[in-house]
Amino acid sequence: MSQETTFRTRYAETDQMGVIYHANYFTWFEIGRTDFFRKMGMTYRSLEDENILLPVIDVGCKYIIAAKYDDEITVKTKLTKLKGVKLQFEYEVYRKADDVLLAKGYTMHAFVNKELKPVNFRKSYKAVWDMLSENIE
Amino acid sequence: MSQETTFRTRYAETDQMGVIYHANYFTWFEIGRTDFFRKMGMTYRSLEDENILLPVIDVGCKYIIAAKYDDEITVKTKLTKLKGVKLQFEYEVYRKADDVLLAKGYTMHAFVNKELKPVNFRKSYKAVWDMLSENIE
Amino acid sequence: MSQETTFRTRYAETDQMGVIYHANYFTWFEIGRTDFFRKMGMTYRSLEDENILLPVIDVGCKYIIAAKYDDEITVKTKLTKLKGVKLQFEYEVYRKADDVLLAKGYTMHAFVNKELKPVNFRKSYKAVWDMLSENIE
Amino acid sequence: MSQETTFRTRYAETDQMGVIYHANYFTWFEIGRTDFFRKMGMTYRSLEDENILLPVIDVGCKYIIAAKYDDEITVKTKLTKLKGVKLQFEYEVYRKADDVLLAKGYTMHAFVNKELKPVNFRKSYKAVWDMLSENIE
Repeated sequence: MSQETTFRTRYAETDQMGVIYHANYFTWFEIGRTDFFRKMGMTYRSLEDENILLPVIDVGCKYIIAAKYDDEITVKTKLTKLKGVKLQFEYEVYRKADDVLLAKGYTMHAFVNKELKPVNFRKSYKAVWDMLSENIE
Repeated sequence: MSQETTFRTRYAETDQMGVIYHANYFTWFEIGRTDFFRKMGMTYRSLEDENILLPVIDVGCKYIIAAKYDDEITVKTKLTKLKGVKLQFEYEVYRKADDVLLAKGYTMHAFVNKELKPVNFRKSYKAVWDMLSENIE
Repeated sequence: MSQETTFRTRYAETDQMGVIYHANYFTWFEIGRTDFFRKMGMTYRSLEDENILLPVIDVGCKYIIAAKYDDEITVKTKLTKLKGVKLQFEYEVYRKADDVLLAKGYTMHAFVNKELKPVNFRKSYKAVWDMLSENIE
Repeated sequence: MSQETTFRTRYAETDQMGVIYHANYFTWFEIGRTDFFRKMGMTYRSLEDENILLPVIDVGCKYIIAAKYDDEITVKTKLTKLKGVKLQFEYEVYRKADDVLLAKGYTMHAFVNKELKPVNFRKSYKAVWDMLSENIE
């Protein structure tokens, strides 16, 4: 399953180079992730309510063409790995107007509880795990 | 008591106008507040550990001259009001190089507990209250 | 004319109090402003291309109920003042799910050129001025 | 040459997990970079004045232990690669109180001019190039 999310860039996200500041792409990845979970019928908010957190443990991003203020952006989000204690998403960032690829990246997450201790997600949350594992690309 | 805090602006804080994005001044006010508490011998972190939160309920800022990237900034923070359930800070933002006033603002806060319910701070935390009340300007 | 803009809050916008960090509301106001201009048939981006900038010179916000992660937010934006060298917008922030008012604020802007010098907007950009003045509330 | 920069984390940088939001580490890397240039006797601001920009083209970060609000952080910045059209920095993020490594990452940059066109930095800015090349680790 691939999730597409569209939004406009914000003036607050620009920097004095006249483009979107690079760290904001990780916030956009997070928007993609949130929508990915929603599309699967759960919300990341509800995961947190059930004591599951997904802190980021490893990220990367390659920037190809700079996004600018007021651009419409589409983020395509895929779940690419799922192991006992972690999962990985991959993202592609497109400028919607001409469907040009602006950047691509990934985030790796650990399954932890509210005390930030690792959780064996597969065992503890079998139903959610099964749903996720059917949606790996 | 007036607290002075100095730091440099960040590239991330600029926008495509070539100046610091206006909302960041409120983050700078927060840095001033944090240092104000530290100077009084307590930390805002320790207040939170004791179940006291100070959410912002009213803010304002007037911008006079724009701060730029890599400017050294001095924020002067004063406690200006203290009532049973709220307190107010006032801030002046200076460019350190020439001591020019760039902006001035205020933040009003409520005393609440972790459930975001108002707390009568004067009654419940008399020692902290007394210390604060000696430092109103 | 009143402009309504809807979006979801982001995880990046939360703080450790478990609510949206207060300074982000000013970024939301900016989203409302951008949409206000778009609804009038121009874009803030195109204003900048014509050498008109609208830096913020005065802002304020009152916070009533805290927005939370993944809330759908509606910002209602109105143009409330227009003078020779400045204009003012007012904003109301609603939680869409139950139409509860979370915050209200304003931003005052100067008309300046790329060198940040004031511009007599009324004289220099009569067509845009007339359009704006028909949309004051 | 390795550059050490120390600062405190900000409340604005926390998220509702109670830790620093991961994207902020890239802002911290930028603070380290800015100080690296300053230590070498130039400023990134002056590079921009001379029409040299260093947009980010590739980044990565591994998160080991979460930084928290009000932590004192030390970022160690090293220049690790320098080629005709790009350069790479590596960063280590430490919690100053106990010198524990919290995260490590890198950023790769292109040399471009204000029109975002690649510049052969070695040829065009020999003096700066030579100074940088003496400080690779």
